[in-house]
Amino acid sequence: MALYGERGFDNTTVAEIAERAGLTERTFFRHFADKREVLFDGAAALQDLLVNTVADAPESLAAMDAVGEALEAAGRLMGDHRDFSRQRQAIIAASAELRERELIKLASLSAALADTLRRRGVPEPDASLTAEAGIAVFRIAFERWVDEGNEMQLPDLMRDSLGHLRAVTAGA
Amino acid sequence: MALYGERGFDNTTVAEIAERAGLTERTFFRHFADKREVLFDGAAALQDLLVNTVADAPESLAAMDAVGEALEAAGRLMGDHRDFSRQRQAIIAASAELRERELIKLASLSAALADTLRRRGVPEPDASLTAEAGIAVFRIAFERWVDEGNEMQLPDLMRDSLGHLRAVTAGA
Repeated sequence: MALYGERGFDNTTVAEIAERAGLTERTFFRHFADKREVLFDGAAALQDLLVNTVADAPESLAAMDAVGEALEAAGRLMGDHRDFSRQRQAIIAASAELRERELIKLASLSAALADTLRRRGVPEPDASLTAEAGIAVFRIAFERWVDEGNEMQLPDLMRDSLGHLRAVTAGA
Repeated sequence: MALYGERGFDNTTVAEIAERAGLTERTFFRHFADKREVLFDGAAALQDLLVNTVADAPESLAAMDAVGEALEAAGRLMGDHRDFSRQRQAIIAASAELRERELIKLASLSAALADTLRRRGVPEPDASLTAEAGIAVFRIAFERWVDEGNEMQLPDLMRDSLGHLRAVTAGA
């Protein structure tokens, strides 16, 4: 990722990334489908954490509250790496290709969450709407967190952003 | 679009589309940046309608209600073309490239709505969360509408889906 920061994503080749990491190109492609994937290396772990937290939440918990717990857990997972996340976000923001890939990852997180909610017995369209609302909160909380002016911690921003979503949908 | 339905998006060339439409390739590229754009020809009109409806909503209306009005207006704009929309959605679903483009269009709708809400005096993060919630409702309502089993009209599905979102975020 340091290379993307130095030269820009478009000007960095897989050969250069592999060299910097001490890998052959062949080994690189065993780990990553393409050079965009380097920046989304943690996506599978994040998805597992969200899905497992929702699946393991007490049955008595409302769907949105279960998703809220999962978002705070994600906030704890990612929350120690603010400078890294800021650099990464700046690289993504500068490239249309990377913004696309990010949108796809978020859509896939949302689909996985909706699936987990349906397995908890949440009917449609509620499962998909709860999942989409959760991912909206995730995005906005993350954006607030990487914003230079913000001092709040990521799990707190997840909780706070969900509170804001509840207030705006209630029409306050 | 008929050609995409017959041959698949990947197997259709710009030359073939232009020929079917009685255009030169040069004229085609004057109208569309690439062959994906053909399927998103109405995106600008949709964005204008959403933005203008929110901008013109009475000041007394809560942000989410203003967005709800805009979604119903969008439902009326698009709601007469269910068979067309079903065909179009099947083509998009079959192509990763087209799903990407669709996600980008939705992200840009959300950004435009958030911008309009901020100009109405809605602070952050409420403006972005309201916009994201609105786009989530738009997506889910649209999916329900193109689903073969559904007989409800699109404006009604927009209103109904927003109702579901309000219920799930309230933790019902």
